[in-house]
Amino acid sequence: MNIRAVIMAGGSGTRFWPLSRRTRPKQFLDIVSSRSMIEETVARLLPLISPKDIFTIADGSQTAALRGLLPDLPKRNFLVEPLARNTAPSLMLATACAYLQDPETVIAALAADHLIRDPDRFLNKLQAGAKAAHSGDRIVIFGIPPAFPSTGYGYIHFLREKGKRIGGEPFFPVLEFKEKPGRAEAEHFLADGNYYWNSGMFLWRADVFARKLRRYAPKFFPLWERMLDALEKKNQKGLRSVFEEIPALSIDYALMEKAKGVLVCAGDFGWSDVGAWSSLYDVWPLDEAGNAVKGEKLVLDSQGCLVYAPGKLTALVGVKDLIVVDAGDSLLICRKDLDQKVKDIVEILKKENKKYL
Amino acid sequence: MNIRAVIMAGGSGTRFWPLSRRTRPKQFLDIVSSRSMIEETVARLLPLISPKDIFTIADGSQTAALRGLLPDLPKRNFLVEPLARNTAPSLMLATACAYLQDPETVIAALAADHLIRDPDRFLNKLQAGAKAAHSGDRIVIFGIPPAFPSTGYGYIHFLREKGKRIGGEPFFPVLEFKEKPGRAEAEHFLADGNYYWNSGMFLWRADVFARKLRRYAPKFFPLWERMLDALEKKNQKGLRSVFEEIPALSIDYALMEKAKGVLVCAGDFGWSDVGAWSSLYDVWPLDEAGNAVKGEKLVLDSQGCLVYAPGKLTALVGVKDLIVVDAGDSLLICRKDLDQKVKDIVEILKKENKKYL
Repeated sequence: MNIRAVIMAGGSGTRFWPLSRRTRPKQFLDIVSSRSMIEETVARLLPLISPKDIFTIADGSQTAALRGLLPDLPKRNFLVEPLARNTAPSLMLATACAYLQDPETVIAALAADHLIRDPDRFLNKLQAGAKAAHSGDRIVIFGIPPAFPSTGYGYIHFLREKGKRIGGEPFFPVLEFKEKPGRAEAEHFLADGNYYWNSGMFLWRADVFARKLRRYAPKFFPLWERMLDALEKKNQKGLRSVFEEIPALSIDYALMEKAKGVLVCAGDFGWSDVGAWSSLYDVWPLDEAGNAVKGEKLVLDSQGCLVYAPGKLTALVGVKDLIVVDAGDSLLICRKDLDQKVKDIVEILKKENKKYL
Repeated sequence: MNIRAVIMAGGSGTRFWPLSRRTRPKQFLDIVSSRSMIEETVARLLPLISPKDIFTIADGSQTAALRGLLPDLPKRNFLVEPLARNTAPSLMLATACAYLQDPETVIAALAADHLIRDPDRFLNKLQAGAKAAHSGDRIVIFGIPPAFPSTGYGYIHFLREKGKRIGGEPFFPVLEFKEKPGRAEAEHFLADGNYYWNSGMFLWRADVFARKLRRYAPKFFPLWERMLDALEKKNQKGLRSVFEEIPALSIDYALMEKAKGVLVCAGDFGWSDVGAWSSLYDVWPLDEAGNAVKGEKLVLDSQGCLVYAPGKLTALVGVKDLIVVDAGDSLLICRKDLDQKVKDIVEILKKENKKYL
């Protein structure tokens, strides 16, 4: 069985402003460790997948930065989208590349900017998932057992009774994908026990992916065939024209929500999508007063703060539950429970045509 | 009448850390306007006193910086203390220099780092004060009508009934200097009406100063004579040895508290000693939500903050009554009512032998 990891490394994060910028999205930041998130993502795969089988996909503006951070990957493994068009086009392209080499290649479509606290368990699940994807006409998705009634994730409703073990791990048939719910619905999902968060991490065999597209996403199938054709002929113009036409949809919306034969596997390996600054508060080490500080610190009567200011001294005096981020040309001081507003700041900066983005 | 301004420009501020440093005390900071405080101090004197009669006094480590900021003053006007030994030795030296040129010179001893909101009124008072000092055997001090029962200033108790007008302004005989009081005493001083804050700004004729020293500070008088002698002979070594011996006392403690014949004049010209970061909140312009920001800002649901971060964008989200100061290598985040703790930070940094001082 041939497993190919495809790391989706495009997209520009806005929720880690002022650190994340157009040209420096979240996956390039050293926010969960001393390495960037994309380096962590690759490093945790290495015990299972060799560098020649680890690919990234992003638009061309990121290629140089990605190659710089991941020098052990072959240069041809940095796949380039002609245009950034959401995850459906991007994963179709990455899968098409694999299909042309070996239609039975198992693709592990992974995010570049997720945190996984238990990488060994993750690799076990990944291996079992690959086996499940390889052995039948099905797509595998990692679902995260919900830790609280989040209204920020999509959910996957599955049939627990029809679970089966593959490679030692349980897999359940997916009944339905649910969009981000309201609070009441989220509480119902949590209480029900048969809902997982959608992690956005998938496994499929390239030929199975093609079959599912033809059957459940018929609008996309001709575009898939044109991609294959353009790739075979190394026709960059042709590939670009596909990307100009293709709907910019997520793979969830384009295919997963419609497809039959999707299995979910519990992603109970300490997953976090590190969605905003405050999520790092659970990741970074805390001092006695419960402050998480990257950089030198001097703390007087202060609790619960998260500070990112490497290379400088931050003095906190009598403050509580603040997020402080120094990004050189800009500084964020934010109440910790209001970090969702960081997106608003980015919107305002865009409208005002300001730098700092 | 010859008036000579002597601006006390030594001392290293600690209350404006992280902006103020050993080599960059408060008077060098652009915290009240776009110019440094020492530049403001000199500029407000110019309508009355020409540059040739404006002197600074500080220890030698500051001379280059002072000359750089005040290029219009003659080079010889930057007086140098052989050692930094508090204000009594420093003002004795500055007065001795004037005495040797003209014993009847009136010295206006001024601080380098005070804010004066009404400079015209200040100059009128200064002129009247110089007249008062020149015409009799007396020292003049500016007293600040107290705005609240401060426990942070010394007070001057004066005899209102014996006031007299000189140069159009009222002067009152000083009864007693009071050290920084407790809260109850401060409230009594305020209610009484015959107490002013000690501004630390004085006027005296050089020869009168000498006479007062001989009579009321007899331990200092021989040192004064040795200063005169060393200055006359340009004996730097001799001057240094005086500074090595002389008690490091304030002029208030060494002379003023003991002297008779001291008049106080109301310094009702919008004075502030700008004692700590929060005092700037009353000086800087406020936005609609009551934030005072030096630098570019983006404010969401935030009130009452004071931000010094010139040259960068500061985004405030849901925060209230904070002091935020970015000094490049260090960052202060402090509850606005706790800015007195900044001194504690400096003490801690000293003990830990850290840079950032």
